[in-house]
Amino acid sequence: MPVLANPAATAACRRYMDRDLNRTFTFTFLSSTATPNDPYEVTRAQELNQLLGPKGTDQAFDFILDLHNTTANTGVCLISEASHSPFNLHLCHYLQLQNPGLPCRLFQYDISGRETYSVESVSKDGICLELGPQPQGVLRADLFSQMRTLVGSILDFIELFNQGMAFPAFEMDIYRTLGSVDFPRTADGDLTGTVHPQLQDHDFEPLRPGEPIFKLFSGEDVLYEGNSIVYPVFINEAAYYEKNVAFLESERIRVSVPALPGLTSSSTLVP
Amino acid sequence: MPVLANPAATAACRRYMDRDLNRTFTFTFLSSTATPNDPYEVTRAQELNQLLGPKGTDQAFDFILDLHNTTANTGVCLISEASHSPFNLHLCHYLQLQNPGLPCRLFQYDISGRETYSVESVSKDGICLELGPQPQGVLRADLFSQMRTLVGSILDFIELFNQGMAFPAFEMDIYRTLGSVDFPRTADGDLTGTVHPQLQDHDFEPLRPGEPIFKLFSGEDVLYEGNSIVYPVFINEAAYYEKNVAFLESERIRVSVPALPGLTSSSTLVP
Repeated sequence: MPVLANPAATAACRRYMDRDLNRTFTFTFLSSTATPNDPYEVTRAQELNQLLGPKGTDQAFDFILDLHNTTANTGVCLISEASHSPFNLHLCHYLQLQNPGLPCRLFQYDISGRETYSVESVSKDGICLELGPQPQGVLRADLFSQMRTLVGSILDFIELFNQGMAFPAFEMDIYRTLGSVDFPRTADGDLTGTVHPQLQDHDFEPLRPGEPIFKLFSGEDVLYEGNSIVYPVFINEAAYYEKNVAFLESERIRVSVPALPGLTSSSTLVP
Repeated sequence: MPVLANPAATAACRRYMDRDLNRTFTFTFLSSTATPNDPYEVTRAQELNQLLGPKGTDQAFDFILDLHNTTANTGVCLISEASHSPFNLHLCHYLQLQNPGLPCRLFQYDISGRETYSVESVSKDGICLELGPQPQGVLRADLFSQMRTLVGSILDFIELFNQGMAFPAFEMDIYRTLGSVDFPRTADGDLTGTVHPQLQDHDFEPLRPGEPIFKLFSGEDVLYEGNSIVYPVFINEAAYYEKNVAFLESERIRVSVPALPGLTSSSTLVP
């Protein structure tokens, strides 16, 4: 069942009207009593929770595939919460095998202890598919075509799983979130520089201690002062300026993924 | 004197609040009686006209340099109205000589008979400097650095002119607007496709009859049906979807630019 998550923001060509919808699927917002002054996205999150959830219940959909674009040069990036990983890791591996021309990376977002807040947290399982770079308000044929191909592959994978196919164990590299780095700013929060040209567009590539991360308006470079290699992701994403995120830091780790046994009952995944 | 043209839209990270400011500097809007219900940009255009004009009077500033970004892959593009051309052509030529690493093209916008409407039409002379590609809400260090370098070169040129330097005649290629091409749409105005991958990002490159310009969502290609080579500009610019412009068509022409004599009076250009 396809759903346009935020029709008002889509019509206005903005990420959101009142607050970021994809941070609003917490039990606090979903269970709050509706009032006429609610932010648009709180009302919409409650509607989507009725349609696709309710979150945390048996009636919830099995799987939500959440489609996104970013201004960052992420290429094909699947964002998976750590708790969802075995099924999602097999899904990512299937995409890699089916689409060798499209490097597809899995970014594991571990919110460790905090409550989940994204739309795909409403269903029992789910994943977010990010494609970039694409500016807001622009439809690029190349990214649109990639998105269509990838959605087709994901539906194929779910269909095979539903038909009872088992998937063997494998090893793969994934990127696990470590934290975030803000832009250089004044005490008042104004930017004093932006992402360094040597870092810009280099999502998922190694950043070594001592390499430049920001170019200040004064002309000076700001160097990365960490102790080890990290892999920046969502570098210079437009929607993250207000979240004080110039890029996310991740570590690349090798994971052994156990086999996914074939379904034996009549239960199937419904996307 | 630096001026932020549209502070409310800048704060909201949008092109405009109520209507496109850079289409609002007509005598009709500039001379209309203010009312409390005026669109924000009409009020702002009148303020800027008081500050930098009034348009069409001797008190108006000599020159406005209007700085822009675009999501299109224009590189460095100077937009000049045909009536302004001798001074602006020398300015463009100076930038080309001073910045050989930055291909700088002049796009001559001929509104032939219609009233001028851009902010630089308020001053006696003026030019618009476009840099792309850059998404809205993102500051790329490479484009910011280019913009700073180019503004410096333009101020140098004006300073040399003000000091009485004469500039010799030369020949150059410029791009002259021919018209615009809309996206493929349904009768209701919804998109049925987008810019073809072979055209996307190829601003200022020759488009030959029979080459693809759009990729329909059905998978079909739409081919260019003109009779001769044109040079598309502002391909897939986010702000132009609502103006029914997928790209502008231009012709490349060779122009002979006469010498610009040195100033002899005490009058100087004030940017």
